[in-house]
Amino acid sequence: MKVVALAGGVGAGKFLRGLVRAVPAQDVTVIVNTGDDLRVHGLHVSPDLDSVTYWLAGVADRERGWGREGETFRATAELRDRFEAEGSWFGLGDLDLATHVFRTSLLAGGATLSEATARVCERFGVPVRLLPMSDERVTTMIHTLTEDGVQVVFDFQQYWVQRGARDDVKEILFDGVEEAKPAPGVMHALHSADAILLCPSNPVVSIGPILAVPGVRRVIARRKEVVAGVSPIVGGSPVRGMADRLLPAWGVEVSAAGVAEHYRDVIGGWVIDVVDEAQAERIRALDLRVAATDSIMTDDAKAEALARVALELASA
Amino acid sequence: MKVVALAGGVGAGKFLRGLVRAVPAQDVTVIVNTGDDLRVHGLHVSPDLDSVTYWLAGVADRERGWGREGETFRATAELRDRFEAEGSWFGLGDLDLATHVFRTSLLAGGATLSEATARVCERFGVPVRLLPMSDERVTTMIHTLTEDGVQVVFDFQQYWVQRGARDDVKEILFDGVEEAKPAPGVMHALHSADAILLCPSNPVVSIGPILAVPGVRRVIARRKEVVAGVSPIVGGSPVRGMADRLLPAWGVEVSAAGVAEHYRDVIGGWVIDVVDEAQAERIRALDLRVAATDSIMTDDAKAEALARVALELASA
Repeated sequence: MKVVALAGGVGAGKFLRGLVRAVPAQDVTVIVNTGDDLRVHGLHVSPDLDSVTYWLAGVADRERGWGREGETFRATAELRDRFEAEGSWFGLGDLDLATHVFRTSLLAGGATLSEATARVCERFGVPVRLLPMSDERVTTMIHTLTEDGVQVVFDFQQYWVQRGARDDVKEILFDGVEEAKPAPGVMHALHSADAILLCPSNPVVSIGPILAVPGVRRVIARRKEVVAGVSPIVGGSPVRGMADRLLPAWGVEVSAAGVAEHYRDVIGGWVIDVVDEAQAERIRALDLRVAATDSIMTDDAKAEALARVALELASA
Repeated sequence: MKVVALAGGVGAGKFLRGLVRAVPAQDVTVIVNTGDDLRVHGLHVSPDLDSVTYWLAGVADRERGWGREGETFRATAELRDRFEAEGSWFGLGDLDLATHVFRTSLLAGGATLSEATARVCERFGVPVRLLPMSDERVTTMIHTLTEDGVQVVFDFQQYWVQRGARDDVKEILFDGVEEAKPAPGVMHALHSADAILLCPSNPVVSIGPILAVPGVRRVIARRKEVVAGVSPIVGGSPVRGMADRLLPAWGVEVSAAGVAEHYRDVIGGWVIDVVDEAQAERIRALDLRVAATDSIMTDDAKAEALARVALELASA
């Protein structure tokens, strides 16, 4: 059974740890958002690729969510405190830095992002096939109205990390996406998958960019009967992150049913948390299969149970 | 009294700490070898500029000689052990890495090496004016005969750090030096200096590249009466490093007098260690002024005393 998962960062990382307990890892292809990719101090940083890699490799910091466990931040502290370097608001750990230095050096040597990702995954012993959504640059841009009433455009990490998502979001655009091609393997994996899962990631800035890569939304929509998603909204707010700040800009209600409605043309099934069971009827009315389960992934066993529910719904 | 010093790495760093106790730091210009500069993981590393910066800023590791005190090597260990990255034989500390990342990012943004160096020095509060010998790339190449009898060309850091200077040196070439121009300020500083000092650095691979930059040797030779050098050879061997492996390739005797002879067209005075006092006559016979003193810089006070002797000899 070939499984494809669309993934953002931390939520996806946790979910995928469960997925590889439910199906053989070699049958899993993960297509990862690269809309948050950015240059920090000249280094190519791929936050979502790295989060998923670290989670699947078992080296993620479970408490903090992002980055490596046992991490230190000496180089970044030096860049911030001594050099007052632009971009040092982005906390690159010393171990994490090795990944960015290695990736940047491969890219500078002519490797594509797919090739660099494969090399990084191999070194971490990641058991699944991890693909960036595209080898071309796509940058999620957040058009905001700041506290002072000024319209400013931030890239996603600036908006999220540097500004703490405090600005009113007017619009979200994926700069470069029209020219981007799906990375090698992406379209084939989607065409031939027995199940396609949308990880419980931010629908706007994690899954949104992947679906916006030309061709991707169409093939998923055509295969919607084998597609199931896991709601990242539980009890009316995001399990993690700030999707509630972004969904309204797309006119999406911040609820499990609201996100299901947003995805209705690309999914056949929708997994919600038990606390949202009351919304099941409304979701079924969208002509979607629904399952309600415990979706809070406090450990791998819970993530596995959640993955099994999603897989069942995808292949129902 | 305007003083210019020609500098390599660690020996120069120690000496310059003494020099800035002997004369006001704002009157000191240091011209630093960049022939050892290299790209490590895509980062621009300037070993001698950094050594001198760290020593003058008081953040050098006195025990190890190179790098920062209280340094850790987590990113490099990761690059070596996990990524098996090319170049990870070069030990970049985590704090040190911040310098290279900052410099590389300035250079990528269009800054010259001089400009990047000024920014780094400013952030470290280095009190002297530190100039790279040139803003253009010059690479010291060591032509060797390996243990297996094979002729191989290494850049200096490969020869020195990776190969541990174990190969027989046939020739030393400064690749790119014919096209290189002295960095802005270098020629003016040399023309207007009241004293020019050659730090106790490696004559072949530290002072050699600086003298090889077109125009530099000529102006120093013309001003030789105000030039004094400090012998890096004490008792027939280098105080630090492996100059004894390199001097013979240039036909230079590994002794205080041998190096004085090598420098005779560019110096007016030569400072030797008291243990080499017997060679004073031979050096005077080269038409050079000589002073014998304790040249082992175990602390800043000793470095200061040595700097005072050199200054006196330069302006005698």
